Amino acid sequence: MAISKNSFILIDYVIRAKDTGELIETTIEDVAKKENKYEVDRVYEPLLVIVGENRIIRGLEEHIENFGEAEKEMQVEIPPEKAYGVRDSSKVKIVSVRELIRNNIIPEVGKTVELNGQVGVVKAVTGGRVLIDFNHPLAGKTLLCTYKIVKIIEDDSEKIRHLLHRRYRRIPLDRFKVSIDQNTNSVTIEVPKEILLDRDLQLVKAIVAEEIYRFIGKYNTVMYIEKFEKETEKK
Amino acid sequence: MAISKNSFILIDYVIRAKDTGELIETTIEDVAKKENKYEVDRVYEPLLVIVGENRIIRGLEEHIENFGEAEKEMQVEIPPEKAYGVRDSSKVKIVSVRELIRNNIIPEVGKTVELNGQVGVVKAVTGGRVLIDFNHPLAGKTLLCTYKIVKIIEDDSEKIRHLLHRRYRRIPLDRFKVSIDQNTNSVTIEVPKEILLDRDLQLVKAIVAEEIYRFIGKYNTVMYIEKFEKETEKK
Repeated sequence: MAISKNSFILIDYVIRAKDTGELIETTIEDVAKKENKYEVDRVYEPLLVIVGENRIIRGLEEHIENFGEAEKEMQVEIPPEKAYGVRDSSKVKIVSVRELIRNNIIPEVGKTVELNGQVGVVKAVTGGRVLIDFNHPLAGKTLLCTYKIVKIIEDDSEKIRHLLHRRYRRIPLDRFKVSIDQNTNSVTIEVPKEILLDRDLQLVKAIVAEEIYRFIGKYNTVMYIEKFEKETEKK
Repeated sequence: MAISKNSFILIDYVIRAKDTGELIETTIEDVAKKENKYEVDRVYEPLLVIVGENRIIRGLEEHIENFGEAEKEMQVEIPPEKAYGVRDSSKVKIVSVRELIRNNIIPEVGKTVELNGQVGVVKAVTGGRVLIDFNHPLAGKTLLCTYKIVKIIEDDSEKIRHLLHRRYRRIPLDRFKVSIDQNTNSVTIEVPKEILLDRDLQLVKAIVAEEIYRFIGKYNTVMYIEKFEKETEKK
């Protein structure tokens, strides 16, 4: 089977380093907790993937596109070049302690540092010289990914609710009211009041409108409705 | 005559210092230009005053409330306590040059400086000491104000358009589409696309809704509609 470009799917996945088996990333809360990778601020739930959008690692997206199948547990081995890239030895640099100090960095082995906009890990400190590896920590790693497509979303309003929800993970999907008028090719979205004062909302609305045009097509107008009710009426 | 509280009126005015006749502020472009007080970035047009809102100097607002009359040229002399306050000699302070330097201020007579959140004008520099007057530059001044109420706004949608326009002076009044449903006591405002990406828009919408409830009353819901159209459709 295969999943065509621009399909909206929800996946659960567990990604591990092939060599050590170490858990790298997962959507499944229990797995994260069991292996001490649980992030308190994260919402654990299946991830929205729009095939071809290029937001997830390439090896996984290609596997979904070529072999994806709903409700089937899949496994894929992903080489570095389709994950976090191969290791580039020119990105391992020697920096003087003096330069680090000038940038308010005290070098210690294992420490993650940011220098001139690049993030690296201190590998060694000898004399006045510090070895820093600016490769992505997962560069050069082959990954093992198990995943399951838990849903293929067909309904346009459901797709749109997911586009909104992925920008505001804490707002439940059904708080976004979406209606579609097929005659005028227009989408109307009622914005939940919990996010009305979010400073990024205007940008998010423009982005989601663009995503609707790009990935769902067929519509020409996205209209947002926001209700500001009188305080006393709310009680 | 008198103008009751919460009335929406538009006024043109010219405010001068009584002692020197110097122009302090005006809504009239020609006057500002003639007297070299023209500000390029300002939109010159009659100002919206909501009687009782307390956004303009008190002496002028009181005069409008007690004696205001549409289309009639009025003159009022405003004492300091109903304008920019009386002068407070305790706000004239001696500061050491050293303290100013610590705050990156080089003291020069006549310079406006900000120190500890207060704005003042340097009056004298002698030895290591600097005399700074933290009174408002117009404190202690009696003002002469001529004004004319050019319109008393009766229609609610027009009031609302003015509430929006005063937040976005560059957007013409008629770009804000307002409709009112008297049965449901709700107001619907279509937001012009020129301001859709303004980062303050969410806050402005909440503020204007509050202003509608406070100054116009009778409505319970203010609904904003924003259309994001497909790029190619715009052409």
